[in-house]
Parts: sequence; structure tokens; C-alpha cells
Amino acid sequence: MTTSLLVLGGARSGKSRYAQGRAEALAGNLVYIATAQAFDAEMTERIVRHRDDRGPRWTTLEEPFDLAGTIARASDSAGAVLVDCLTLWLSNLMLAQMPPEAATHALADAIARCPCPIVLVSNEVGLGIVPDNALARAFRDEAGRLNQTIAAQATEVQFIAAGLPLRLK
Amino acid sequence: MTTSLLVLGGARSGKSRYAQGRAEALAGNLVYIATAQAFDAEMTERIVRHRDDRGPRWTTLEEPFDLAGTIARASDSAGAVLVDCLTLWLSNLMLAQMPPEAATHALADAIARCPCPIVLVSNEVGLGIVPDNALARAFRDEAGRLNQTIAAQATEVQFIAAGLPLRLK
Amino acid sequence: MTTSLLVLGGARSGKSRYAQGRAEALAGNLVYIATAQAFDAEMTERIVRHRDDRGPRWTTLEEPFDLAGTIARASDSAGAVLVDCLTLWLSNLMLAQMPPEAATHALADAIARCPCPIVLVSNEVGLGIVPDNALARAFRDEAGRLNQTIAAQATEVQFIAAGLPLRLK
Repeated sequence: MTTSLLVLGGARSGKSRYAQGRAEALAGNLVYIATAQAFDAEMTERIVRHRDDRGPRWTTLEEPFDLAGTIARASDSAGAVLVDCLTLWLSNLMLAQMPPEAATHALADAIARCPCPIVLVSNEVGLGIVPDNALARAFRDEAGRLNQTIAAQATEVQFIAAGLPLRLK
Repeated sequence: MTTSLLVLGGARSGKSRYAQGRAEALAGNLVYIATAQAFDAEMTERIVRHRDDRGPRWTTLEEPFDLAGTIARASDSAGAVLVDCLTLWLSNLMLAQMPPEAATHALADAIARCPCPIVLVSNEVGLGIVPDNALARAFRDEAGRLNQTIAAQATEVQFIAAGLPLRLK
Repeated sequence: MTTSLLVLGGARSGKSRYAQGRAEALAGNLVYIATAQAFDAEMTERIVRHRDDRGPRWTTLEEPFDLAGTIARASDSAGAVLVDCLTLWLSNLMLAQMPPEAATHALADAIARCPCPIVLVSNEVGLGIVPDNALARAFRDEAGRLNQTIAAQATEVQFIAAGLPLRLK
């Protein structure tokens, strides 16, 4: 069975760095699938900083919506694929009013079929108080469902806090 | 010593499903004590969906306030009792301006005296940033105190993230 | 190598009590460095309650800004030093428009040089949904960076939920 690793954590928990380190420990070409879309200066600055942090071993693909198709295309010739992150992808889907459930199942299938190791980064967002507005509550619910589905599919799940991994699976 | 299990987790973490699975692994009649009150369509829909998910082995009792008394009455003839969830119960108490401290200690006593295994579900809500309004901060503080008191009483505590359990006790 | 312990947790998770218990298990005089500043009645009440909870073995120092210098001065004659908490300290720095990065590195150096055991308490604040306002997002990011830096320096890291420790390092 090919390795699939879900890296779960909070904001600034070090989850992306941990995920990158795990991918870089593997052989071959590395493909980074970025789901972030830059809507403002704050996001643009984050995207550029993250890209600068990665070295020349990485090829970057930007894909806000079709993760399943992009993984299928990218994984043929890659040593490993890293998707960062599922939470922004979910946000993209919901803002575009695309139903997340079918996309999540397509993603789980793509992970199962991925011929090379795949690492996926996702945020845990459900451990604060109930948000005031209904959209934030809906997002929190969908993010929890997404994490459960991908965690059930993954062969390994790590929870990151303060840069340190804790194995959940 | 009879088993008492506290299942702690975030929103959509899979904590209710995990708690149900643990209760269903036990013998005898199963009693589900629901603390949710339906104030709007969103809540009504959640309650109905959760009830539909449970099978015919379950008897459902709805009790928004008197958990200690309901546990004492229900546990006499039950194979196991499941309480879902303590966070909504705390919310009910605070909205009704009933002091949570005495009720929490009565609950801890009822758990200690419960003649059958008991599983309790609760939310961890203290891992986001400090809420803007004082009521949300007070709720967060009370929820933390409640979780500490019940965790100290429980014989087992599991933290659930992305559907996966992590044993705390 | 001298012990340095980072105790990470949510609001009302029992992290301060756990940290105190670990410090009190050590020999000698205990120094408590409080970073809280009382801006309102709610904070004043918390500070007084926490101080009343500590026994006569403790000397309390209040220092909202210069943690590195205070640790260096206090640790010479102490059996152990406890800093509670780093999150309020970060908040103090940001409200005073002092850059947190240099202060964080000075703190990490002070921990490395501390001649006695040191215990530091910090909040995990990044596991809720993305805050609405930019200041809260910036604080959450800085808090995550701070926790990563101190966790990398610490010889032991414990995550506390419902009063129960989970070892991260």
C-alpha cells in the first residue's frame, strides 16, 4: 500500500513545515499543489513567503478547485505529492457554491489511487467556541467532515502542535 | 469499578459516533440522554439526523437540565448510558441562569454512583482565540471547568480529532 | 542539561495548575513570574484568585515585558522558575507595539541559560476558525510562532486538555 499522510494542525502550528520535511525525506521529484488563492495583500505575502521557503526540488502547481484531477495528473511522474492545504480548498469550493461532499469523495478516491506517496495538510478549526455567524458554523462543520473522511482514507495521520507531531493513526 | 468514559473533541470531530460505537460494544439496553433543545431549524435538523442515525437498540430520553436525576433513573435497567452532550447541557444551564458549579458536582456524583457503564460526550472549546464578548468568555471558562471535573471523575478519557481517538486517561 | 518544560493548553484546561504541580515537585525556593496586567475587574479578579491559590513557598514577580531579564535575575537563587503565561506576555508586547520576534529569541536564550529548572505556560489559540479581524489573525500567527520557538528550545513539552497531560516532547 502506498503511503498517504494527513497532517492536521492549527494556525501556525508548523504543520506545513512538518509536511514538507516528510515529503523531502522521500526520493524523486516533488510536486507541491497549492490551493491558496490570493484575494488580498495578506494572502499574496503568505503565498510568496511559502514558495520562497521551498527549494529547487519542488515543482509548484496552483489548483484552487480540482484537486482529484490535479493529483491524478501530477502523481504519474512524481516521487511524492504534497497538497497544502485542504482547508483553503474547502473554502474555495464553498465560496464558489460548489458542494463539498462529492469533491471530498473524489479526493479520497484520488488519494487511494495515487501511485506515489501523498502528503495532505489540513487545519483543525473546531476547537474554539461556536462561531456567531451561520456561514462560519457551516464551514466548521464541513471542515470537520472533510478531515474525518480524509483521515479514514489516510494510512497515517499526525496532529501538529507547537511544531511537534502527535500520531493519531 | 464501573467504567465511565469521557469523549472530548471539537465540532464535527466524530466524537458522538465514537461514543456511540463504544456504547454499542457493550451488552444490554442502551439509553441515550440527549441534552439538545431545538431553538431553530438548524438545531431541529441536527437532532432528527442524529436520532435517525441511531438504531433500534437505543431508547432516547431528552433532558436539558437534570442530568444527575435522569442518569440515576435511567441506569437502573440499562446496559449502558450515553449522555450527548455536556456542552449543550452547560449552555442550557447558563441560558436559564442556573449556576453550573453545583450541577457539575451533582453530575460527577451521579457518574460515580452509576451502576452501569456510562459514556459522556463533551466539546473542547478553549483552543481558539479569546472571544470578543464576555458571555462567550464566561461560557468557555465554565466549559473548561466542567471538562476538568468530569475528566477527573471518569475512568477513561479519549480526545477525538478527525474521527480518531487519542487516550488522555 | 537543565530541565525546561513548556506547558501548552487551552483556556481553563488546567495548564497553570499542572505547571505549578510540576514546579512544586522540585526542591528549593519557587519564583512565579506573572505576565498578566490588570486592565479591568475581570482580570484583577483572576490575578488575585491565582495568587491566593499559590502557597507560601512561592515568591511572585510581576513582569509584563522583560521576561528574559527577569528570568536571568530570578533564577540565580531559585530552585525553580515558573512563567505564567507567554500568551499574555505576547499580548502585552503587541499592544505596546514592541516587535515579538526579537523578544521571543531573547526569551529562548534566557531559557537555554537558566541555571535552574524552568516551567513556562502558554495557550494554544490556533484551533478555532479564522478570526474576523486582522489584529486577532496577527496575534494568532505570532502566538503560533512563539509556541514553536519555545517548544523547539524546551526539553519537555506537555499539552493539557481537561486537566490531563499529553506529552508532545
